[in-house]
Formats: sequence, structure tokens, C-alpha cells
Amino acid sequence: MSNEHRKMPGFLGWVASDAEKLSHALAGHRWLSPWGVLRLCDCLLRGVAQVVFVNNPLSGLLILIGLFVADVTVAGATVFCTIIAFFVAKVLLDLPDGQISAGLPLFSPVLVGSVTASLFTLFFHSPITPAVWGYMGLAAALSVCIFAGLNHLLASHNLPAYTLPFNIATALIFLGMRGAGYGANPTVDTPSELPSTTDSPAFNSLENVTLVTPDDSLQERVCLGMLLSSGQVWAVESVACSVLVGIAMLLCSPLLTAACFVGGAVGTLTALVVSEGPYAAAYAGVWGYNGFLAGGAMLFFVVASPRVVVLAVLNALLATFIQSALVPVFGQNSLPVFTFPFCLASLLFLAAVSSSSSFHRVASPSFPEMHLLQHHQESSATQERKRKEETSADMIA
Amino acid sequence: MSNEHRKMPGFLGWVASDAEKLSHALAGHRWLSPWGVLRLCDCLLRGVAQVVFVNNPLSGLLILIGLFVADVTVAGATVFCTIIAFFVAKVLLDLPDGQISAGLPLFSPVLVGSVTASLFTLFFHSPITPAVWGYMGLAAALSVCIFAGLNHLLASHNLPAYTLPFNIATALIFLGMRGAGYGANPTVDTPSELPSTTDSPAFNSLENVTLVTPDDSLQERVCLGMLLSSGQVWAVESVACSVLVGIAMLLCSPLLTAACFVGGAVGTLTALVVSEGPYAAAYAGVWGYNGFLAGGAMLFFVVASPRVVVLAVLNALLATFIQSALVPVFGQNSLPVFTFPFCLASLLFLAAVSSSSSFHRVASPSFPEMHLLQHHQESSATQERKRKEETSADMIA
Amino acid sequence: MSNEHRKMPGFLGWVASDAEKLSHALAGHRWLSPWGVLRLCDCLLRGVAQVVFVNNPLSGLLILIGLFVADVTVAGATVFCTIIAFFVAKVLLDLPDGQISAGLPLFSPVLVGSVTASLFTLFFHSPITPAVWGYMGLAAALSVCIFAGLNHLLASHNLPAYTLPFNIATALIFLGMRGAGYGANPTVDTPSELPSTTDSPAFNSLENVTLVTPDDSLQERVCLGMLLSSGQVWAVESVACSVLVGIAMLLCSPLLTAACFVGGAVGTLTALVVSEGPYAAAYAGVWGYNGFLAGGAMLFFVVASPRVVVLAVLNALLATFIQSALVPVFGQNSLPVFTFPFCLASLLFLAAVSSSSSFHRVASPSFPEMHLLQHHQESSATQERKRKEETSADMIA
Repeated sequence: MSNEHRKMPGFLGWVASDAEKLSHALAGHRWLSPWGVLRLCDCLLRGVAQVVFVNNPLSGLLILIGLFVADVTVAGATVFCTIIAFFVAKVLLDLPDGQISAGLPLFSPVLVGSVTASLFTLFFHSPITPAVWGYMGLAAALSVCIFAGLNHLLASHNLPAYTLPFNIATALIFLGMRGAGYGANPTVDTPSELPSTTDSPAFNSLENVTLVTPDDSLQERVCLGMLLSSGQVWAVESVACSVLVGIAMLLCSPLLTAACFVGGAVGTLTALVVSEGPYAAAYAGVWGYNGFLAGGAMLFFVVASPRVVVLAVLNALLATFIQSALVPVFGQNSLPVFTFPFCLASLLFLAAVSSSSSFHRVASPSFPEMHLLQHHQESSATQERKRKEETSADMIA
Repeated sequence: MSNEHRKMPGFLGWVASDAEKLSHALAGHRWLSPWGVLRLCDCLLRGVAQVVFVNNPLSGLLILIGLFVADVTVAGATVFCTIIAFFVAKVLLDLPDGQISAGLPLFSPVLVGSVTASLFTLFFHSPITPAVWGYMGLAAALSVCIFAGLNHLLASHNLPAYTLPFNIATALIFLGMRGAGYGANPTVDTPSELPSTTDSPAFNSLENVTLVTPDDSLQERVCLGMLLSSGQVWAVESVACSVLVGIAMLLCSPLLTAACFVGGAVGTLTALVVSEGPYAAAYAGVWGYNGFLAGGAMLFFVVASPRVVVLAVLNALLATFIQSALVPVFGQNSLPVFTFPFCLASLLFLAAVSSSSSFHRVASPSFPEMHLLQHHQESSATQERKRKEETSADMIA
Repeated sequence: MSNEHRKMPGFLGWVASDAEKLSHALAGHRWLSPWGVLRLCDCLLRGVAQVVFVNNPLSGLLILIGLFVADVTVAGATVFCTIIAFFVAKVLLDLPDGQISAGLPLFSPVLVGSVTASLFTLFFHSPITPAVWGYMGLAAALSVCIFAGLNHLLASHNLPAYTLPFNIATALIFLGMRGAGYGANPTVDTPSELPSTTDSPAFNSLENVTLVTPDDSLQERVCLGMLLSSGQVWAVESVACSVLVGIAMLLCSPLLTAACFVGGAVGTLTALVVSEGPYAAAYAGVWGYNGFLAGGAMLFFVVASPRVVVLAVLNALLATFIQSALVPVFGQNSLPVFTFPFCLASLLFLAAVSSSSSFHRVASPSFPEMHLLQHHQESSATQERKRKEETSADMIA
């Protein structure tokens, strides 16, 4: 990241986009100094925001406040898992400081915490016991190891691991807890009913939907679903949280925010085609969060262009299709699909784009507006050089 | 591909093997010229034939005629999907011209069209509606993106993606359409009966088998099964189509044709061991098409030798085993196995061969006879050079 | 492997650690000489021991004796499959001589033989017929091809294939044999009962557990389970065999032995948390063998350090979690989980470690003590060089 390109005016450099002045200020201090606590908070909060590709502690704080407003347990579990993950990444695995400071190894544990805390009661029909917190902490620790492993494997193809570490670790503890007898009764009684998706626990969540009243029109419900998609990334169904997520993202990058919400809208609308009524899940944002992430994933890793927007929409479509395909398959083992659909679709699309000369992969991602600026400067510099070479060739001739 | 090696006499250079004179003639014209339509037809037809590793528009035409004879809807869906795929590959993703001209991004969409049109009625017990055509077109578009993605990932291991893009895209829309309520009744009623393979939809196809009469001997039925394997690659059960496929392949490469039909025979015979009676599926060629492709895949990507023939037979065996393994697993979600077995087996075998010095991977595939010729010329050139070096070393001494 | 580092006293160099004097003596003779039989026996026995990362024919002999003591059929099937595999590796695929001499392509076939022979009766409720031996031989042959393929793919990430070839090949023939009608009755009757793990065949094995008497205390049973883990790697439940495995491993490397048994203990203890009572499977070592292998996999491929021990324990934990997650999934198709859990966990952890500068991957594995010694010598040599350079820089100044 060449900083000469950057012309962020004074105060904004501390709080907006990727808060790079703060990064620089903190990077000078050691972890085991009084500043260490501040660095820890900074990277934990960045981890919370990195779930939606935002590398900004203030955004993370806004999202964390959103989680607190929506559900105190969810916010607590998020903080708990992120702290454990920090120590695994720093002390046990000794991952590169740059990765940890940007919160990259921490966003999977963030989701381990929020999603497990949010979905446990729903899927296991029992309260969260201390043992569940133990499973959660273990999954957070494992997800960091899985992050390091997948990162090593995918880096050779120039691909990120997205939230796959969260998906794998959380799927494992969900299956493990079921094996240990949690929520055993519902599974044993109704194995034959599971393939019908409307009966699976993922959709029972919608019985207690109170945000949608029967009087709302179809358009209002669909719009609500699109909005709620942003909170559902952390498995939280709350208008307040979703709005805070939107503000937090705007603080970093309006382009990214637009791409994500377009993706969420595509996902929610696609759900009306690929799922059967009464669409309660779609109105709650459950069919939009994969599209939300899929839309952002394209615009974050590829320099923006009209073609990339088409790709982002197609990616959100594919993610939603994969979701509709995986729901019955995962339902056979009473598992939610997590963000597997987003990961699979985005890995394929990013790989597809990497081999084409018409798209420009971002070398060191910061935020889409900066990518555009840097790409513009680089291509003008290249053209300038060419023109000079031609001129000097002319002069010699 | 060095063209000096080639000594194809005048007329045959236009229609036989990989019709390279036609390629060269067309490559000189731009897509947006009056010749563009001819180039489009050329690459669409090559796409149809590339399913069986044949890069020849005349072969593609013969096979397309075979599909028309067998089932007009199937042929129409094939053309529909291939045209959509062409525009995604050319306009949206801007894939390399060489790839598109050879029909490589198009053979997965060809299969998306023919297989969806052929199996939809069978698996969903309902007629093909306009919405199904929409799903089909979407799957064709996605399969091109998946092709570009997998190609990028596998190219670093020097492996082709085979028909994996078709498998993934078609499996997704089949699951998606089921989620949208297509053919819902049969699934809901009989989930517990699915694991017994003889009841799954894939095998109900055989109730309407009229080609086999009860008077035929076992040998006649098995031979018919081996022949029908070639048409079943496009999910079509028709003697006429299968014979046309055979002729189309002979036009390009007798060696490849032999390898494919041996593979189909191995698959059909293996089915009598790994499946239970009354073997109606085997007699219809349903157990042979994976072996058919697996046999060809070895001979096409590796320079032919007696050892490669053994490998091709083993590969056809493995593909059939994988098929018998996947049928009940996929059947749980009422999915056919498509050509997943062929892809998995062939990827493993091709990777196995790549690391051995006794096998010669083809650098730029054209057709097996040319591979043999080029390999022969290269090894004689190497020997010649060595002899010269020795002679000159002697003279100096 | 630089031999100057080695100071193994005379006789021990022939029988202990990786018996490198024997390797050197045999490597001088051709396969088609009278010594060929001895080379064949050497590499077959090394293959038996390589399952637990031991490259020593005497260890292999001890383990094979253990298998004979436990079950003559199991030992016979092991030898049968290993011999078939040898010819596929040597004659058909022509794999590098160094690989074959160390038994690397043979340890997957070893497991194909022992595990199939041991579990067939249990899972298919029928005796082993000649046809089953045919399937077994085919799986052994395929597992070598899969080994070569996966090795090629994973080598570019500097990762071993572990026992994945065995897992894939054996899962295929188990599914294939079921498709061919073996043990058909239990499956057809009870598909709806399978999801409850305690009813699946893997756990019926424990009805005939006679080693544990009701009078034993919990501690005694758990300790027995930890011990039996080592034999369960070959799917054999026998105290004598497990003790012989321990002795065979001690002969090669006490460090490795300790890591494996700690892993087995972690797995067995974790099982008490992630599975439900009455824990008969845990007492029989069925929950320990994945941890056993996972513990060893870390210490064998990474230079030992306190951090690596923590990782080995975490890896054993993850493997056991994956086992608890896969048992119900695989149970739906009446499959055991084989050593898939170990493979998946260890691939992720080894990849995680590869990207960190705090861990030292072993370049050419021999045995952990030698890795430590070589690493120590290398780092002192580096320090020595640095000191010299500084001194000479001082002198010049």
C-alpha cells in the first residue's frame, strides 16, 4: 500500500475509510506496552468489521453496538470468541503482525461467536449452558488454525479464504454438540420430515418474526428483508443492528456499501423464485445475507467497473442458488447453511476473474474507492511512460 | 501447436481431425464482420463435439443432428444454452479467443442444455415450462463462469476442468428447482424409499425402454448398452444418435473413438457386477457413459502407449465404481450423478500420470494420432541432437 | 537426507530408527536380482509401518505379527493388498524408486487390506467371499493411483496425502459392494434409524467387546481405550497387537510414540464429551485412532518444540471433533468414517504451520529425533557463519 497516493484530510484519516492514520500510530507501539490494550481493542473491532470487508475500528464499534442492541448474549459471545482467537493467532501460531492488526484472522471467530450464540437456541431447543460456551471457545480457536491453513493453500492461487474457517469450525461444533446429545429429541423423532425445507429449524426462526405484520404489503416486506440481510450476516434479525451496519459500512466505503446492499436485494428477490411461500425467511433477511456478502466480495477484490457490477449481481445469484441447493442437504443433519453459499460462489467467481485480462485484481486491498484511484494512477503512469518512450524514439530517429 | 508437423492432405484438412484449415481461415476474420456468424456457428459446433474431446465443427454438426433425431427439445435446449454461453464467455468474461474458437468454454453449457432438457421430465414428473428454460439459461451462464474459475485453479496443476462446470451448475439448478416446488409431490411422499437405488428416478427411465425386447439375449442387451453409452453422454437414449456420435468421432480420431468405446464397454460390464438386476439401466447405456468419457480422457491428454490403455481401462473402472457409490448418495436429494464420476476419476488419474516420467502428458492437445506423431518426432529430434553432440565431442577429442 | 549428520552405532543402524544401513545396502541391488525378494519384503514391511510414520522393516514385521495374532484374515488381506499395490506402483505407474523403497505408496493399500477384512463382516453381516477379495485387490490397485494423483496435487503445497488414498478407495468399494447387494437387508429395512449414531454398525462392534468387563472402573476402561487406539489404526481391537505397535514405534522413535499415544489419549477423552454413553466405542479405542495419528502427524512433519506439542493436542481434538461430525453423515450411507477425520484435520494444521515462521517444517522426513538434531546443527551453523562474517567485518574496519 503506497501511502503517497493517499490524500485523506486530517481528521478523516483517523476515523474514515480504513483509518490508516490510527493503524500507523498504533503500529509503532509494542503489544506488551500500555498501548497494547488499545492495539488489542483496535484489532478486535477491525475483526468485527472485516466480516463485511471493512478495515475500520469505528465501523466495528458501531456494528458491535448493533449486536448489543439486538441481543446481549450474541455481542458477549462475539467478544469472548474474538479475544480467544487473538491469543491463538498471536501467541500460539504467531501469525504475521500485519494480518493480526488488520483483524484478518479474527473475523471468522467473530462469526463463530455471534452465529453460535444466535442460532443455538433455535437449532437445539435448549438454553446456552457453560458447556456450549466451551464448545464456542474451542471453535473460535480452531477457526484461527483453519484460517492459517486455508490461507496458505489458497494464497498460491491468489484467493482469500473468506469466511470458510468460520463455516467449517461452526459446522463441526454444531455436529459435535448434536453427537453429544444436545437437542436430541427433535432429531430422533423427525428424520423423515427434514427434507421438506419449510419444516427445518432454519425456517422455524420465522415463527417469532414480529417485525412483519400481516398488514404490510409485499413490497414493504421484501424491502424489509433486503435491509435485514445486513444484520443476518452476523445471524441477527434486528432493524437497528442492520441500520448500524449500513452506517458503519458507509463510513468506510459508499461503493462497497452499495454493492453489498444490491447483492442482498438480489438474493432476497431470487429467494422468491427458488423457495416456496410463505417466504417468511426471505422477509427476515435469511435469504439475503449470502448475496450481501457475495456482492461485496466482487467489488472489494476487483477494481470497480460496469462489468464487475454485472459479475457481482451474478455472484449474488449463484450464492442464493447454492443456498437453495444446500438447505435441504444440510437440513438432513439439522445444520444451517451458514455462509458456505457465499464462500463457494465467491471463490469460483474470483478465480474466474483472475484469469481474465479484462478485470483487474486488487494487489493489496484497502477499500474500493482507493483501488479505483490507484488503478487510475497506475494506468496513467503506464501511458505516460509509453508516450515518453515513443517521443524519445522519435527524437533519436 | 506447431503446424510444420502437419501433413494433412488438402480437403481432409478442412473437415477431418481438428479441421485446422478451417480454424486458420476463420481466425483471420473479426467477430463483428459478416464472417462472424460463420465463426459463431463454427465455435458452437466445436463446443458440441468437445464434450467427447473432439475439436471439429463437422463432428459437432453430426452429433447435433443425432440429438435432433433423438429429441427435438433436447437439441433446441443445447443450441439455446450454447448461444447464451458464447455471449457470457465473449462479452462478459472476455475469455481468450483461442479458448472460445476451440469451443472449450461451451461444452459444459452444451451438456447443461441437453441433460436438463432430457432429464427434467423424468426427475420432476412435469413438463418443461418457460421458467425451466430460464433456469437452464442461467445455469449455462453460470457454467461458463465456473469454467473460467476452475480452469484458473486447475491450470496451476496442469489439469483440465473436464465437465465439472456442467455438473456443478446443473446440480445447482436441479436442487434450486426442487426448492422452488417443482415435482414436489414425489419427493415428499417417498423420502424413505430413495436409498434403494432401483426405485430412484434415474432408474425409472428404464421403464419406458423399448429398445430392448424380452427376447434379446444377454449378450445382445449388453452390446446395445455399450453402444447407447455414447449417446448417453448427452443424456440421450437413441441408437441413431449413438451411431452418429461414433461416426463424428471417427472423423476426428479413430484412436480416441476406440478408447471411448472400450471405456463404455468396461463401464457397462462393471455395472453388471456393482449393481443389482434386472440391469435395465446398464442395457440403456446409463452405466456406460462415465466409462466412455473416462477412457477417452486418458488417451486424449496422455501420449498413447500400451500402459496408457491399461490406465484408461482402470480409469473407466474407477469412474463406474464412483458412479455406483454416488448414485445412492445423490439419490437422497433426488439428483442424478451427471458426469461427476468421470470428472473425479479422471482428475485423479491424470494427476497420477503427471508426476510419472514413464508417461508423456500432451502439452497442447489436438487429437491422439497427432500427439503420437509429435512425440515421435520430438524424441527422434532429441536422439539426433545427442548423437551429433557425441560425434562432435569425439571429433574434438 | 545428509548422512554425515548421522552417528548411529553399528548394529542399531541396521534395525533401529529408519534402518538406513539396510536401505543403503539394499538400494545397491536391482529389483530383478536374487536380492529383489529381500527388497520386496523390506518395502512391504516398511509400508506396514509407514501407516504410523515409521520407516523401518523390523517395526513393520512386529506390527504384522500383531495383526496375525489378532486376526489371521486381516493379516492375510494386508499382505495380499500390499503385494498388488507394489506391482501397480512399480510396473504400471513406475513411481520413483525412493518412494517405493520407503513404502510410501504402500501404506494406503496396507490399510485397504486390514480395514476391509476387519470391518466387512461387521458392516455387511456376511462372510468374506472370493468376490470381496477381488474388490479388495481392486481398491488396493486404485489406492496407489489415487496416491500418485493426490501426491502430485498436494506436493505443490508441500503437503503429504496422508491416508486419503486408502479412505477414498475403501469408501468406494464399501459403497460399491452395497450397490452390488452385499448386506442389503439391514439397509433396506432401517434407513430411518440410521441417523441415531448409537444404532449404526460402527457401534454394534462393541456388543462383542469382551476385553472390558463390567467390574472394571471407568479409569481402567478409558486407559484400555487409549491403549487399543494404536491397534485400531489398522481396525484391529487387540491388546497384544496394540502393545506390539507400541514396541515397534519405540524401536524407531520414542518421541513419535509419545506424541501418538498422547493424541490417542486426547481423542479417547474427547469422545467422552462429544459422544453419548455407554461409551463402549471409546473403551474399544474406536474414538482414539484418529487422535493417535493426528498427534503423530504434527510431530513427524514439524521440528519438535513445546508449541508443536500444543498443536498436536489441538490437532487430535479437531480430528475427534470431525469424527463426531462425520459419524452420522457417513452413517446415512452405512459407512465407517475410516481415517478421514485424521486426514482433514492434519492437512489443515500442517498447512497452517507451513505459513508461519515460528514453526520449522521438516524438508526430508526421517524421524523426529533426527529432525531435532539436524535443525539444531543447521541453526548453529547459521549462527557460526554470522559470527564469522561479523568478525571479518570488524577486522576489515
